[in-house]
Amino acid sequence: MSALFDKITIIGLGLIGSSLARAIRANGIADKLIAADLSEEVCAKVAELGIADQATSDIRASVAGSDLVMVCVPVGAYGAVGEAIGPALKAGAVVSDVGSVKQQVIEALAPHIPDSVHLVPGHPIAGTEHSGPEAGFAELFVDRWCVLTPSAATEIKAVEKLTAFWEACGARVDFLDAQHHDLVLGITSHLPHLIAYTIVGTASDLEDDIKSEVIKFSASGFRDFTRIAASDPVMWRDVFLNNKDAVLEILQRFSEDLSAMQKAIRRGDGAYLHDTFSRTRDIRKQIIDSGQANYNAPADTDAPQGVPPATRINEQD
Amino acid sequence: MSALFDKITIIGLGLIGSSLARAIRANGIADKLIAADLSEEVCAKVAELGIADQATSDIRASVAGSDLVMVCVPVGAYGAVGEAIGPALKAGAVVSDVGSVKQQVIEALAPHIPDSVHLVPGHPIAGTEHSGPEAGFAELFVDRWCVLTPSAATEIKAVEKLTAFWEACGARVDFLDAQHHDLVLGITSHLPHLIAYTIVGTASDLEDDIKSEVIKFSASGFRDFTRIAASDPVMWRDVFLNNKDAVLEILQRFSEDLSAMQKAIRRGDGAYLHDTFSRTRDIRKQIIDSGQANYNAPADTDAPQGVPPATRINEQD
Repeated sequence: MSALFDKITIIGLGLIGSSLARAIRANGIADKLIAADLSEEVCAKVAELGIADQATSDIRASVAGSDLVMVCVPVGAYGAVGEAIGPALKAGAVVSDVGSVKQQVIEALAPHIPDSVHLVPGHPIAGTEHSGPEAGFAELFVDRWCVLTPSAATEIKAVEKLTAFWEACGARVDFLDAQHHDLVLGITSHLPHLIAYTIVGTASDLEDDIKSEVIKFSASGFRDFTRIAASDPVMWRDVFLNNKDAVLEILQRFSEDLSAMQKAIRRGDGAYLHDTFSRTRDIRKQIIDSGQANYNAPADTDAPQGVPPATRINEQD
Repeated sequence: MSALFDKITIIGLGLIGSSLARAIRANGIADKLIAADLSEEVCAKVAELGIADQATSDIRASVAGSDLVMVCVPVGAYGAVGEAIGPALKAGAVVSDVGSVKQQVIEALAPHIPDSVHLVPGHPIAGTEHSGPEAGFAELFVDRWCVLTPSAATEIKAVEKLTAFWEACGARVDFLDAQHHDLVLGITSHLPHLIAYTIVGTASDLEDDIKSEVIKFSASGFRDFTRIAASDPVMWRDVFLNNKDAVLEILQRFSEDLSAMQKAIRRGDGAYLHDTFSRTRDIRKQIIDSGQANYNAPADTDAPQGVPPATRINEQD
């Protein structure tokens, strides 16, 4: 069986880009795989890891002759990447990305893509709090959703090719309008990250003696937030700068609800608290019913999905 | 080797109480174990599970002759439990609890405890989002901290006995002043739970079409919050009503920090966002260094601790 693509270029070899490289290799998705990253250090690491046929810091040259170009850089760098690759893209190629925001980044990338090339934006709902080429693993996308946000004008063949690509990586593919994607992810991802960053920031401003106990007794809930708040700062800065409207809108609703909660605590309104705390259980149940989480996940964890046991070392053991 | 205690009574057979019952059995900590719960349904379930020698809804009678009484009810019920058991406690017995708040609940319980009985409050930093006698498991406390908050007047022998009890359950024991405990846990546990409940509440108020997508794409961060927000509503209502001052104090700091974050997003202040997001990584590193979390936890999980593999079924498999 021949590979899905003759030649694929991945631009940006962080967690997602390097996981894609590994998934492409593991599943025989391309005959040739080029890794491109502006950082010479990353290129050297990619060569050392042996996860691509070639690693180069020459972004423009890296896309020559490629049938699929996956842009895996922080969304703030899309304009620069578009400018670099635009003139070198092969006619008929598919250009896609993995950015957590879609509307603004399509606007940043699209003007640089020639008419003969198919832009099909995408966003795999997968990740860990770790960064860099060493953090990736081939199974990251297994059983995870990948949302594609093609415009109405996109050629169906190109969308089908990209769908086949993600399915070959183990993902399930779904389609959303770009603006709607940004609103939904603003709620499910961007706001939770913002809040986690904030609460961990609040804790890091505490007096030293309390802070050491906060770290010691972190298992009581706080630890979950610190994991989320350990995510890549550049990636997340760019997400908030590029999905401003949706994030501010949902943050406003959250702030109102938090004020109501604060007032209930101040007044000792047990009925309000109990009602709210009961209502939220239902959403968890729906998530479990939809197969997106596990009932039997103990303590502060949902059971790992699609991750090889070797990466699940408990440092306390 | 003889058991640590001749007779132990557990009052309240929810997640923590039933886990204690199982741990006592598994580690041979008592010759006789009595389970007491106001709910006849819970008593029947305990009898069916066979995790105690006797299950009764007669709280007062349940403590007669017991050397250790563990109060495992929501903290709002401490006054009623104290009133019920006070007259029936055996001289020399140790009374302890597992409540997430210490100062106010000591005030609720202490007046009912005779001078001949030793009150040593405690709080195991362990739990899951599940409730009820079926949710417990013997290994819940293994390698987890249990914080004891004895007063200066507490007899050292009683504290030593309770320390031995928790160590026999697999826990590590530490000591804090009750007020200080409430402040630290306000940060590490109560505020995170409040925020998780709030954000999941905000999501559950969304229009139906968006809500179904929020559930579908929950894996991007939101899912972690729903797990926390699935915790027992009565327990948490009582926590917030009984640790009002500490929670409101830390909530105030959090709200200020969130406003600053909101302003930075509105203004497009990438430097502020990047600085904050970088600073929070350090706390995660300290938690990992202290052995309270794992570097290699993939995706949205810290690797489970002290939980038998059989309870870690992935429903998606």
